[in-house]
Amino acid sequence: MQAEIITIGDEILIGQIVDTNSAWMAKELNGIGINVGKITSISDQKNDIVSSLKQAMERVSLVLITGGLGPTNDDITQKTLSDFFGMSLVQNDLLYAKIEQRLGDRGISMNHFNREQALVPDGARIIQNNHGTAPCMWFEKEGKVVISMPGVPFEMKGIMQDEILKSLAQHFSTPVILHKTIMTEGIGESVLAEMLIDWEANLPNCVKLAYLPSPGLVRLRMSLTGDDENKLKRVIEEQLDKLREIIPANIFGYDDYPIELSVAKLLSDKGKSLGTAESCTGGNVAHLLTSHAGSSAYFKGAVVAYSNEVKENVLQVNAADLEKYGAVSQEVVEQMAIGAQKLLNTDYAIATSGIAGPDGGTVEKPVGTVWIAVAGPEEVISHKFYLYKNRERNIRVASLNALNMLRKILEK
Amino acid sequence: MQAEIITIGDEILIGQIVDTNSAWMAKELNGIGINVGKITSISDQKNDIVSSLKQAMERVSLVLITGGLGPTNDDITQKTLSDFFGMSLVQNDLLYAKIEQRLGDRGISMNHFNREQALVPDGARIIQNNHGTAPCMWFEKEGKVVISMPGVPFEMKGIMQDEILKSLAQHFSTPVILHKTIMTEGIGESVLAEMLIDWEANLPNCVKLAYLPSPGLVRLRMSLTGDDENKLKRVIEEQLDKLREIIPANIFGYDDYPIELSVAKLLSDKGKSLGTAESCTGGNVAHLLTSHAGSSAYFKGAVVAYSNEVKENVLQVNAADLEKYGAVSQEVVEQMAIGAQKLLNTDYAIATSGIAGPDGGTVEKPVGTVWIAVAGPEEVISHKFYLYKNRERNIRVASLNALNMLRKILEK
Repeated sequence: MQAEIITIGDEILIGQIVDTNSAWMAKELNGIGINVGKITSISDQKNDIVSSLKQAMERVSLVLITGGLGPTNDDITQKTLSDFFGMSLVQNDLLYAKIEQRLGDRGISMNHFNREQALVPDGARIIQNNHGTAPCMWFEKEGKVVISMPGVPFEMKGIMQDEILKSLAQHFSTPVILHKTIMTEGIGESVLAEMLIDWEANLPNCVKLAYLPSPGLVRLRMSLTGDDENKLKRVIEEQLDKLREIIPANIFGYDDYPIELSVAKLLSDKGKSLGTAESCTGGNVAHLLTSHAGSSAYFKGAVVAYSNEVKENVLQVNAADLEKYGAVSQEVVEQMAIGAQKLLNTDYAIATSGIAGPDGGTVEKPVGTVWIAVAGPEEVISHKFYLYKNRERNIRVASLNALNMLRKILEK
Repeated sequence: MQAEIITIGDEILIGQIVDTNSAWMAKELNGIGINVGKITSISDQKNDIVSSLKQAMERVSLVLITGGLGPTNDDITQKTLSDFFGMSLVQNDLLYAKIEQRLGDRGISMNHFNREQALVPDGARIIQNNHGTAPCMWFEKEGKVVISMPGVPFEMKGIMQDEILKSLAQHFSTPVILHKTIMTEGIGESVLAEMLIDWEANLPNCVKLAYLPSPGLVRLRMSLTGDDENKLKRVIEEQLDKLREIIPANIFGYDDYPIELSVAKLLSDKGKSLGTAESCTGGNVAHLLTSHAGSSAYFKGAVVAYSNEVKENVLQVNAADLEKYGAVSQEVVEQMAIGAQKLLNTDYAIATSGIAGPDGGTVEKPVGTVWIAVAGPEEVISHKFYLYKNRERNIRVASLNALNMLRKILEK
């Protein structure tokens, strides 16, 4: 089952915005067994819309169009599609009432332009848009389906999820496709693949596996195809059980759930508090944690100890140890964690100290050397990591590793 | 002058990656007076490549192709284009030597596949790729130009900047186009537009102005078109002088230079040090500052005081004032700044305290209320901001405003 996507809008063609809609739609369509064969971005011009649509319909049975429905271009797209399908524009009462109400709420009455907005091609199925006033239209002609949606990402996504994906799965009787993403940490892609050789070889035929590596973590994606959704869900659970036996310590979440929220949930469930003492991560761990609403319930604060002076005076790191072992050392990072735990009066404290780069490396401690410690109520655990040459990546990966160390301790 | 872009690669069509290349290319092409009329994304298949290219060449004089040159697809694209233009594949000695050297550096000798990589269409101009081994090819046929580049963003961008943009400007004798972006802070778009009415009305004809608002700042972009580059540069300087007279305090940088680097430069030049005391920004100011190499020269550290306990015990905020005025108040934010300045032993300290949202607002202090203070060697300055309803945006904008307050003080 093949489809094409057409995105309408000058803002894409002048490079003012990146077309993120197409990738999102392609992924969602893949999820219901529909492949996208071509994506075309064109300007808001009648000739371009007609010729692109005509060519696409010669090649495939489904064309999804986004954009070109903004207030200034309404007439063109609705009229263009209406002409193309040999339909006439008629008022849609439901749409009219909705626009009238929206304007009424703001004390404005309908004018000529607003009334035009409610005109839609008489042979099109009008799909409810719960996220704005632009119409969403479903056309059928000679067994082909053409769908026109607004280009504003949240409107398009809302309509797709509310209605279009279900309708398409029904119309084209596509198979059931389920995805499950497992977030892993602490093992590189190739080593992980080796550890999973047997498991992978014994996966049922309905499961396809993909490795999706990104800085600091590897996501495993199982894609399952079949007719029976419940059966596929059981397969997912069985395979997750097996995976959790092979790499128990490395799975930190599912379906792109951020690690700081896994940590947040564990802390909240146990009623424990957290603080951080950050050198090389420069406040990024605190920033990740506080990016989420409700973090004040478990996160008390942080000390970003960028200079040795702050490590000594604020976190009470021993000056002689700083001199003897250097700031990037097990001794110092453990004292930083204990210092933060005491100063901030928390149950747990994370500390980081490393060489983020691009400068500052030595032969013994090259750029990418990072010490991380977690102080808990009973013990301090520390670990040395050898990361990358890139500053941004090192800050990000050190932050993830620090949170992951804490997660493992909290899950014990 | 019209062009089209064709991007080749299944990864775009399954939604695994977003096509960011096209927007970048479109913007750069615009910069030399070339408009992009259509962007097409297709799979790595010969028929698709040939038919899309044929159609594009019927419409425009310039087609840029990216992707499809990865190690597994080399043969298809090079051979497809070679067939399409009626050329034969011959070995390019320069390319051969380069691949051989690259492999040699890693102790590997050339195999059949590597030799195939060095085969290029005999009528194409081969453009030097200083960023990888994939060939970049420039074809001409009946007055039309077709350019094939690798899809890896940094390789494509490198080749475009090193060579393609210059060659295109020469080949199509496009006009000189210069852009200058002015970064402003502290005034909303509409107020700024009002303040600049006269200036804008008197701009020379060769200048086009665009307002590009984003959370916390407005960028003004002047785009100049003409024949004489030096003359255009003089116009830019004249107009910048006029602008700096109208909004002296609001310009914080040029050409997308980040505000934390403006602050960094001012601190370094004066030999002064900085610390932060962050409540609502949760460490993001420290994170922004430490994202850049060399920040340890002026940034000593931060206290993220998320709980009142930390504000009291670590930053020495007066408990009675916390009780009386609340954490989000002028009294508390000024004491936080002074506390951080003392504790971290810095010349300057920035403090933030606000309600980031989505919860925690009251009638007197709704979500988006943020107090920011800057303590300097002689005085403490504080300011109240009314920001947004969105947590992420509030954290970002409060951080930018805090850095901008410091910038203004340092520039005095």
